[in-house]
Parts: sequence; structure tokens; C-alpha cells
Amino acid sequence: VEHCHRVIDYLATSRPTAVNLFWALDRMRARLDGLAGADPMAIRAGLLQEARQIHQEDRQACHAIGRHGASLLPDGARVLTHCNTGGLATSEYGTALAVIFTAQDLGRSLHVYVDETRPLLQGARLTTWELQQRGIPFTLICDSMAAVVMQQKRVDLVITGADRIAANGDTANKIGTYGLAVLAHAHGIPFYVAAPTSTFDLSIACGNEIPIEERPGVEITHGFGVQTAPAETAVYNPAFDVTPAKFIRALITEKGCIEPVHRAQIERVLLAT
Amino acid sequence: VEHCHRVIDYLATSRPTAVNLFWALDRMRARLDGLAGADPMAIRAGLLQEARQIHQEDRQACHAIGRHGASLLPDGARVLTHCNTGGLATSEYGTALAVIFTAQDLGRSLHVYVDETRPLLQGARLTTWELQQRGIPFTLICDSMAAVVMQQKRVDLVITGADRIAANGDTANKIGTYGLAVLAHAHGIPFYVAAPTSTFDLSIACGNEIPIEERPGVEITHGFGVQTAPAETAVYNPAFDVTPAKFIRALITEKGCIEPVHRAQIERVLLAT
Repeated sequence: VEHCHRVIDYLATSRPTAVNLFWALDRMRARLDGLAGADPMAIRAGLLQEARQIHQEDRQACHAIGRHGASLLPDGARVLTHCNTGGLATSEYGTALAVIFTAQDLGRSLHVYVDETRPLLQGARLTTWELQQRGIPFTLICDSMAAVVMQQKRVDLVITGADRIAANGDTANKIGTYGLAVLAHAHGIPFYVAAPTSTFDLSIACGNEIPIEERPGVEITHGFGVQTAPAETAVYNPAFDVTPAKFIRALITEKGCIEPVHRAQIERVLLAT
Repeated sequence: VEHCHRVIDYLATSRPTAVNLFWALDRMRARLDGLAGADPMAIRAGLLQEARQIHQEDRQACHAIGRHGASLLPDGARVLTHCNTGGLATSEYGTALAVIFTAQDLGRSLHVYVDETRPLLQGARLTTWELQQRGIPFTLICDSMAAVVMQQKRVDLVITGADRIAANGDTANKIGTYGLAVLAHAHGIPFYVAAPTSTFDLSIACGNEIPIEERPGVEITHGFGVQTAPAETAVYNPAFDVTPAKFIRALITEKGCIEPVHRAQIERVLLAT
């Protein structure tokens, strides 16, 4: 039991921004506490069952997010997305990508613009692959090209995932999301965030309380092993940014869409049974 | 003479967007025409003299751009720039970087945020190096982080170069510039463009007449030799974008600053003797 608590504590130090991890670890710890006094094999079985339960619930949540969001994607819709939010990041179906996958399941023809998502290129490496597997047409662009495809009226809406959502709807997500939201707003394009309710952190009033992980500069100066900046280059490499709620048209959760995005509306949907 | 005309025609096919190249080739062609009937060595000497004259004028223009723009950078100014606009791209002193270099020459302390400038990373590879050579403090960021440094109030102004400026002030420049201009506008940060008058194309009324070069997708899928996207990934790779004049606070030329940016003001400065 003590070992399990140490492992939970250790895992909790891995990444500071995304809150779902802490949510899942809290559930595992509660289960562990409930098994106090049981023999080791029973503890092991209980924790495994809890983990499988979380996995099963996340699968169902992803599918529900897809169902609630799919009405936003009519036939012919052109969507822009950022980073990876599919089966490689969640359980099976994803969040933002679940919305796209569900619209495809409903027979709608779609086109997806995929931001490559510097520095780690999750869009170029992962999202493209998931779309290819499902036969959904897409176009890969550099992050700096998103403004231009908006200017050229090639994009009807933007959907991203989220790593932590504050009580007022301010949303932390992969670096680049905030800029996309501002650009979408400037072009009159709706900007949506898809995330399970485990991503909400009602203990945090607004986004500037969310801790933002900064990562090593080599991700930018030596992308994928190739040095592309002079030695001793100073780098700023925040892995996430915070998008104020005012730029988000709706939050798409497994309990339904939250629109408009503000505290009372969020509590209404999240605390509904 | 015929051979020289063929070479000029060939060079004119190399890149469609930047107009300075055509401007320089037109000057060489006019000189060639003026040498009609001369012997080959005299033609050679005349063309070399014209080329050296263009180089000398460009050096002087860059220094004049720096002088006209330096007043925009008070002591302690924090500037964001995109792509490379220094001695590696122009004659000696640059355009946007000339403004920064001149402010440093005047003893002002500065900090420069350098967009890496995907896909070819001219910011990461070239601008960082030029700033390092001159001992100007800088921070390299991914293009998608520009919005965040603006949100965090770390940037006082943005300066970029230009590849072609239409008669109304709409400006073609490296891909990513348009998004930066929109983001600067949304954050109340002034956005400046520095360019010699040879960058203006008064034969073009507005920016949507400027031809935009599209480049191979491998620049995005195989950056610097490493494959980072699945085979057969569809890519959109415009090398430039167009920033409408309304987002540009002033155009900084060797003949002075053009502000506000509109046709009559541009003609007033450009056609002044």
C-alpha cells in the first residue's frame, strides 16, 4: 500500500498542466484507501479493476463527446484542428477528433486542416495518421499557415482538445491554441473545445491559476535530432497556453455542449446528474 | 547580349513573389540596352558596374531604413520579428534588422523575440546568428508562441520585412506574417514593415494581385531530412502571405516612414525627389 502511494505521488510529478491525470490518480488513491487491510492480491485486483473502469468510462465519454459535437459538422464542413486528440491521446475515439470521427460515421463528407503543432509535431506525426487510417481527407499545414487558410475562407470552424479547464471556462491546451482562438475570433470563425468533464478543475477560478509546463529548449533548437539554431540560443518553450473563455463558442463534453461558456453554465452541465 | 537577356529571363523565373529581384533585373536589362553595339568586355564591365551600383545603393538604403526606424525602439524596447531580414538577406545591414541594429548602435538596450519561421527556420538558423554576432539579447520561440508572448505583455512592437508591397500598402512577406499582424492588432501592439522602395510595386493596386509561391510539401513533411509525417500526406505550403495595409502601423523605407499606410501617402513618399 505504501509502495502504491509512492507510485501515485511519483506519477503526479510527471506533468503539471493536464488535470485528468490527477483526477485518475485521485480515483486510484480512493480505491486504494477503500482496500485498506486487504491482502496484496486483492489490492492488486481492486486497482486493476478501477483502472479498467476508468478506461471504460473514458471510452464511453469520448463517444458521447462525438455524438454531442457532431451536429456542429454539417456535410462538407471544413475543420481546423491542432495537436493530437484522437485514439493516440485518449481511450479509442478521442475528444476533438471524436467529433470529426462521429460526423464521418454519420456519412458526412469533411475536410480537416491539421496544424503540424511545433515543437513536437503531434499534428504532423499523429493526427495525420489517425485521419489517414479512417480515410478522412486532410491537409497538413505549418502552425503559421492557419491564419492564411482562415483568410482564404477555407475553414468553417476550429476544434481543439483541452488539458485543463478552469471554473470560468478558461482553457489550457497545447501551445498554439490561444493564437488559433484569437485568429478564429478575428475571422468570425467559431472556436470549439472538446473535453471530458474530468478535464474541468472547478477548484481553479480562472486560467491564470493553471500551472504551465515549460519544456527544454532543445525541442526547438534540435528538432528531431537536427541542430537548427546556433549553440547557446536562449529559448522560451511553454508546452501549453491558456485561451480565455470569451474566445470559446462552446465546450463539448460527454454531458452535452456548454454554451455560452461561463461559470454558471459550466456548473449547470457538470453538476447535472 | 542575347545570352545576357536569356540569363535575365531565366533568373526572373526563379521566384515569383519578391519584386526586388525583377526591379534589379530590369535595371540590368536597361543597362544592357544602353550598351548596345559595345564590345563584349565593355558590356561585361558595364554590367558589373551596374551590379556594384545596385549593391552600394542597397547598402545605403538599409542604413537609411535603420535611421528612420530606430526612433520606434526606445531604450528597453522588446521587439518581435519573423524570418530573416539582416545581412544574410540584403546588403550588409538589412531591413527590419537594420532598425534593431541601428537602435543598438545608438546605445539602446533591446530584447528580440525571434520566430523560428517554419518551415525553413530562417529565424532559428539565421536571425539568431546575426543577433548573436552583434551581442543583442534574444529569445527564440516557435511561431505558435508569438500569441502567448503578446498575451503576457512581453512584446512592445513587431517589425518584419516585405517581399512585395502593393500600391495600397498591402504587403506580401514570409508565411506567418499575416497571422502575426492580426495577433498584434488584437493585442494592441503596433506592427511595422521595413523595406526599401524597390519592394513597392505600384503597378499592383492591392495585395490579392501579388502571386504567392507555393513550395514542395517535403519542406513540411521531411524538415531537414527527418520524416515527420506519414507517406502520402497532403500538404499546403505557401511560402508567403499577404497582410492588408490596415494592420500595418507604418512602412519604414529609406525615404522615411509612411504613416498612415494608404495609397496617397505611399505615393507622396515614394515619388518625392
